[in-house]
Amino acid sequence: MMDRVFSGMRPTGKLHLGHMAGALANWVKLQEDHECYYCVVDWHALMSDYADSSMLRDNCREILLDWLAVGLDPDKCTIFVQSHVKEHAELSLALSMVTPLGWLERNPTYKDQILNLQNKDLSTYAFLGYPVLMAADILLYKATKVPVGEDQSAHLELSREIARRFNYYFGEVFPEPQALHTSTPKIPGTDGRKMSKSYGNSLNIADEPAVLWDKLKTMMTDPARYRRTDPGDPDKCPVWDLQKFFNHDAAEMEELAHGCRTAGIGCIDCKKKLFRHVEEVMTPIQERRRRLEEHQDMLNEIVQEGAKKARSTALVTMEEVYGAVGMLR
Amino acid sequence: MMDRVFSGMRPTGKLHLGHMAGALANWVKLQEDHECYYCVVDWHALMSDYADSSMLRDNCREILLDWLAVGLDPDKCTIFVQSHVKEHAELSLALSMVTPLGWLERNPTYKDQILNLQNKDLSTYAFLGYPVLMAADILLYKATKVPVGEDQSAHLELSREIARRFNYYFGEVFPEPQALHTSTPKIPGTDGRKMSKSYGNSLNIADEPAVLWDKLKTMMTDPARYRRTDPGDPDKCPVWDLQKFFNHDAAEMEELAHGCRTAGIGCIDCKKKLFRHVEEVMTPIQERRRRLEEHQDMLNEIVQEGAKKARSTALVTMEEVYGAVGMLR
Ligand code: SF4
Ligand code: SF4
Repeated sequence: MMDRVFSGMRPTGKLHLGHMAGALANWVKLQEDHECYYCVVDWHALMSDYADSSMLRDNCREILLDWLAVGLDPDKCTIFVQSHVKEHAELSLALSMVTPLGWLERNPTYKDQILNLQNKDLSTYAFLGYPVLMAADILLYKATKVPVGEDQSAHLELSREIARRFNYYFGEVFPEPQALHTSTPKIPGTDGRKMSKSYGNSLNIADEPAVLWDKLKTMMTDPARYRRTDPGDPDKCPVWDLQKFFNHDAAEMEELAHGCRTAGIGCIDCKKKLFRHVEEVMTPIQERRRRLEEHQDMLNEIVQEGAKKARSTALVTMEEVYGAVGMLR
Repeated sequence: MMDRVFSGMRPTGKLHLGHMAGALANWVKLQEDHECYYCVVDWHALMSDYADSSMLRDNCREILLDWLAVGLDPDKCTIFVQSHVKEHAELSLALSMVTPLGWLERNPTYKDQILNLQNKDLSTYAFLGYPVLMAADILLYKATKVPVGEDQSAHLELSREIARRFNYYFGEVFPEPQALHTSTPKIPGTDGRKMSKSYGNSLNIADEPAVLWDKLKTMMTDPARYRRTDPGDPDKCPVWDLQKFFNHDAAEMEELAHGCRTAGIGCIDCKKKLFRHVEEVMTPIQERRRRLEEHQDMLNEIVQEGAKKARSTALVTMEEVYGAVGMLR
């Protein structure tokens, strides 16, 4: 049987090039030879944003546009919204029966997030149960492979433990999902730090070329190149990380690196070259995005169809769950 | 608009005469002039019985048979099983977003139950969230009236608080359910204590007449009537509480009370009279029960139909919830 893959993203706004080069590039590859379920986890977003959910609907649309634009193909994978498949809530409730409170309270990610998001009141019942819903997301499709960033390993381990405990009480229903660790290129933000919406340093997938250029123009470079005449070191320059991802012209790369080290070129020259490659990659993506944006009915249809496909798999699992638990049907 | 009533019972085994004379008699009356939703809350049962759920399916069937036998009428009310309506899990998840952990941790019923059921491991995520699912049960039908025993007042108050908090964040979706306090006759068990399965002192609705008589025969009476010749006091006798509920023959009651006080009759005579009245009440109930038991297809149909009716109301509420929260549909 083909490996099943589940992965989800919280809809919290437009995605950036970090997402594109990392998780999404990986997802696009996986859809070729795996049965993939890609899920906009809107309930998860609501857990932290319940105090102001006015952006939720738009955020869901934006993330779906980004996914489809970068090449997720509804004919090759199942793209859907978590809340469109009620079985996520249902399995989460079932799993919660056997999830010890202590596992959740001691979950290091839980403590971290409470600390990191001090402007939000996360001391809710839902937020404590984040890993239970996440386990349900994965187990509902009996996914055996889950692409994870380093920061999500603890959650996946909890999903495995919850699966094991359910199986212990009710019989072998769930396979234990395995992490799929994949290398992700380094895509720094305009200030040189990790690209992240919360740092305000993002180049977004949806950014018009003019916007991208504005951001690139002022992007941080090797701090040693204080003046045009100072030589630089590409290895110390965040712009160079982007060059490495977008620029596949080896000769040009060679030339630019030399120009940088000898102060033969200025940073603006270097960025202009980069921008041309960024534009080349992003133009078809943005065209696809615009087309879908103008045809919301197409987007709706894709998502409805995705929910239908996801639901039909989910229902098979839930029937097994009812049977294993011994519920009256 | 007709008041909506919601009430649920955990399927934990056969119901007894205490249930019949208390909650169920009340439910049967309410179905005449209210829109009533009566729900077998199987998820709630699983919260405490997950370690051995082998009786769950049978318990659900037994409780449904008891309900129908005592006169709940599927043409007058909606009788269904909680897990057949996925929206209970879904709304519970939605409500959990706005439910502060502290409310649940400080819930006095929670602490009591943990202490009372020390043979069960209740330190699970589900059990802490008991009141959230209970709030979902009620709010899903926008019930305005909830018949409650004294011990459930705290839970209903929590449901109201959760409703208020949801409305605060997302707009007025839920009415605040009000408690419907009703007088319940005193129905002691065979040992004189409150009738309860866990005391092993129950007269069950499903008990055959011979079984009922066996239990009555040895039932505790006024302890002062140590010998047949000792006079007794009906007001100190648990058998008398049953007489008051089952025996509507005023003259006979007068006679029995006098006979008791003067040692003119023995307790067995008194119990024989009682048994005749119990039999009279229980015979048609048990016949109805037997008929349904022999036609499980009828029972199934009633429950399927009930789930359909419940779901159609639940869906209207959920549409409002999605809209209020602002979820992509
Ligand atoms: S020339 Fe290019 S690689 Fe060198 S510091 Fe400037 S932007 Fe960075
Ligand atoms: S005669 Fe009847 S009321 Fe009196 S003590 Fe006996 S059982 Fe009770």
